[in-house]
Amino acid sequence: MIIGRVIGTIVSTVKDPKYKGYKLLVVQEMNIDGGYEKNSHISIDLIGAGLDEVVMVVSGAACRSSLETNDKGIDSLITAKIEKIVIGDKQIDL
Amino acid sequence: MIIGRVIGTIVSTVKDPKYKGYKLLVVQEMNIDGGYEKNSHISIDLIGAGLDEVVMVVSGAACRSSLETNDKGIDSLITAKIEKIVIGDKQIDL
Amino acid sequence: MIIGRVIGTIVSTVKDPKYKGYKLLVVQEMNIDGGYEKNSHISIDLIGAGLDEVVMVVSGAACRSSLETNDKGIDSLITAKIEKIVIGDKQIDL
Amino acid sequence: MIIGRVIGTIVSTVKDPKYKGYKLLVVQEMNIDGGYEKNSHISIDLIGAGLDEVVMVVSGAACRSSLETNDKGIDSLITAKIEKIVIGDKQIDL
Amino acid sequence: MIIGRVIGTIVSTVKDPKYKGYKLLVVQEMNIDGGYEKNSHISIDLIGAGLDEVVMVVSGAACRSSLETNDKGIDSLITAKIEKIVIGDKQIDL
Repeated sequence: MIIGRVIGTIVSTVKDPKYKGYKLLVVQEMNIDGGYEKNSHISIDLIGAGLDEVVMVVSGAACRSSLETNDKGIDSLITAKIEKIVIGDKQIDL
Repeated sequence: MIIGRVIGTIVSTVKDPKYKGYKLLVVQEMNIDGGYEKNSHISIDLIGAGLDEVVMVVSGAACRSSLETNDKGIDSLITAKIEKIVIGDKQIDL
Repeated sequence: MIIGRVIGTIVSTVKDPKYKGYKLLVVQEMNIDGGYEKNSHISIDLIGAGLDEVVMVVSGAACRSSLETNDKGIDSLITAKIEKIVIGDKQIDL
Repeated sequence: MIIGRVIGTIVSTVKDPKYKGYKLLVVQEMNIDGGYEKNSHISIDLIGAGLDEVVMVVSGAACRSSLETNDKGIDSLITAKIEKIVIGDKQIDL
Repeated sequence: MIIGRVIGTIVSTVKDPKYKGYKLLVVQEMNIDGGYEKNSHISIDLIGAGLDEVVMVVSGAACRSSLETNDKGIDSLITAKIEKIVIGDKQIDL
């Protein structure tokens, strides 16, 4: 899984009806220094993540791991809010 | 999922018969500044996307998420038109 | 799916017997300018592609989309010959 | 599978309940010189890996290979501790 | 599938018991000039590959393509020895 920050949202009215009721969040990949990678993704939110929050993102077939998300056409899923990242004995500022 | 723009089409007469009836669109990956990445893919269109439209593209096993697309030999699928991308409090020009 | 050109073949006598009867082609990834990427793959050919032809290549789990290819240990499959790539109103020379 | 070193942990209280009871470890990819790649991932630990240990990490659908991990929303899994890496006739310092 | 050379082995005593009886080989990705890419992986060997041999490596879900490898937690599998790579009308030295 990767670490990312929720930086925005997507507005879409013409879409596969399977996405109905899900928020489409833009997540930017973070590295362990607290800096940002260039990569960003659209992820579906399972746990109520809000703007600017640091989250854990699952990719690929693992997104189909529940009845709720199975067969929904999802390849990126927010499954946890990250409160702390501890590298060695240092805590990263989030 | 990633953000891309439909920039072209592919013409193919000799192909796996499972693709029959689907448009094969060339999609170029976009970043959240509205700029373009070098990567482009051929995607199957599920929602009537047209040239120059900004779309959401699903990759990998998640493309098999419906009866229509299951077992069709598809690893990239356009599942939504994107009307707006909002990053923080700024709307990206599309 | 990606665009590639068939640039060569692989000779292998010691191999998983499931590959028996399939050609193992070397495909180099093409970009939409008609130039080449550094990446190349070995792909199984489903549609009779020949040397120098431009093809569409499917990756990952989608390669298991038919009785013929299911459970064959294949992660890259040529499923179409590409006759034309049209980007905007320009046709790319192939 | 890739080689990585366990460099830290993630603290998360708001998360998919399926992760309950699993440690979420931060693993940094290692290359065969013993140096580090920029990439890091969050991995679930199956074998009791500790901080600073060198491990083997499995990615993608292969993480669902046991009753324990099937349908757990996991795309990265630590499945072995690496005691030695031998390249040619040289042993890499770990 | 990709082309690689077997450059070493991994020693691991604490590991998922599913790997028991399999060799864990370090494979370095080769390009079609016969040069090497930076990427290396740990692969399970199905066909008796030895040190310095050039092999074909299958990645991802396709590794689960036999009773032997299904549900073994494997994302990289050596499935063929490569004796010759022919690019156009030139044979690559291996």
